Amino acid sequence: MSSGFFITFEGGEGAGKTTQINRLSAALKDTGCKIVTTREPGGTKEAEFIRNLLVQRDGGQWNAMAEVLLLFAARAMHIEKVIKPALSDGKIVICDRFTDSTVAYQGYGRGLDIERIKDIERASVDAFKPDLTLILDIDVKEGLARSHKRLAGEKGFEKTEDRFERMDISFHEKLRAGFLDIAKHEPERCRVIDAAQNIDLLAQEIKKIVFEKLG
Amino acid sequence: MSSGFFITFEGGEGAGKTTQINRLSAALKDTGCKIVTTREPGGTKEAEFIRNLLVQRDGGQWNAMAEVLLLFAARAMHIEKVIKPALSDGKIVICDRFTDSTVAYQGYGRGLDIERIKDIERASVDAFKPDLTLILDIDVKEGLARSHKRLAGEKGFEKTEDRFERMDISFHEKLRAGFLDIAKHEPERCRVIDAAQNIDLLAQEIKKIVFEKLG
Repeated sequence: MSSGFFITFEGGEGAGKTTQINRLSAALKDTGCKIVTTREPGGTKEAEFIRNLLVQRDGGQWNAMAEVLLLFAARAMHIEKVIKPALSDGKIVICDRFTDSTVAYQGYGRGLDIERIKDIERASVDAFKPDLTLILDIDVKEGLARSHKRLAGEKGFEKTEDRFERMDISFHEKLRAGFLDIAKHEPERCRVIDAAQNIDLLAQEIKKIVFEKLG
Repeated sequence: MSSGFFITFEGGEGAGKTTQINRLSAALKDTGCKIVTTREPGGTKEAEFIRNLLVQRDGGQWNAMAEVLLLFAARAMHIEKVIKPALSDGKIVICDRFTDSTVAYQGYGRGLDIERIKDIERASVDAFKPDLTLILDIDVKEGLARSHKRLAGEKGFEKTEDRFERMDISFHEKLRAGFLDIAKHEPERCRVIDAAQNIDLLAQEIKKIVFEKLG
């Protein structure tokens, strides 16, 4: 492969994105590909400032539109400084969340008009899209249970109730429906994958999809 | 006056906005008006975080589009939390800089496509406009000299070379031309005022314009 390829992972809490990104990255490196793994919001010094504003408790109470604008500010920097340069170098960029998460969380989740989000996407980043988006789909309760378990292991149980955990089940159901709706509207770009299956089988399925796409 | 009224002050460095906002505010209070004075970027806890990102040296190197998105994120919060509630209460809101500064600095100054900024303005804040915008116009070199003098007095001379000071004269000429162009396109909303004149005469002229508008 001589030209770059941009892959994003999407999905709700506890779908196993991080694990699968690591597995895919390793499998691609084994074939000699150059890989950049990154995440949103984040990936640049500037975008990490925005991540902190959005996820820390003392970062303020942003309305949904302000969140969208902050996320696209982070994204504009991330595309310019990290993603496009890597693609120009012929690398495969694997990103944990991208614009679809903004549409799912702030649009389907918080109820902001999705057409407004798309207007901002067009005006700010020329509606720059991934070549392939892997949506890890899992039952909401199962995903949240996995996420709780992981956070409890990482941080101690008392700290698991973070911003996302406090959102209720119905919010996460909206997110899941949102991701599935996005996939339905862009079947060429998006692949929905059953994330409830065994980790190894899931990694195998993802590898197969990606290797087919890369040709 | 029973309904609110939204006034913005615009102009380059050293035009004397702060002094004139204070003078106008005092004059309006003398007639019994309820006044809210505020500034951009800023005016809410969240927006002040963004102000810090943009003006501090360690806040990162934002591209012009990311700056626009950050400024509208701050503005979306400012409008929702401060400006609209005050206007609904029948107050007069006087704001130091608003969207015109974004168009002038990031558009005319940094060269970003102005139509893109307007697209973001429409999508994010419904192109919410002031009732009256006072553009304090001054020769660039005179304005910068005043600004240097003021900053030297406030902070000690060694600290005057802040982000804005480092921009060159030609940048400030573009800003000035930008504000004049904005005024030309929206003569009903914008009034250009000669800010080189004596402070008292300038205050008098502003007071006259505002009182006529308020009726």
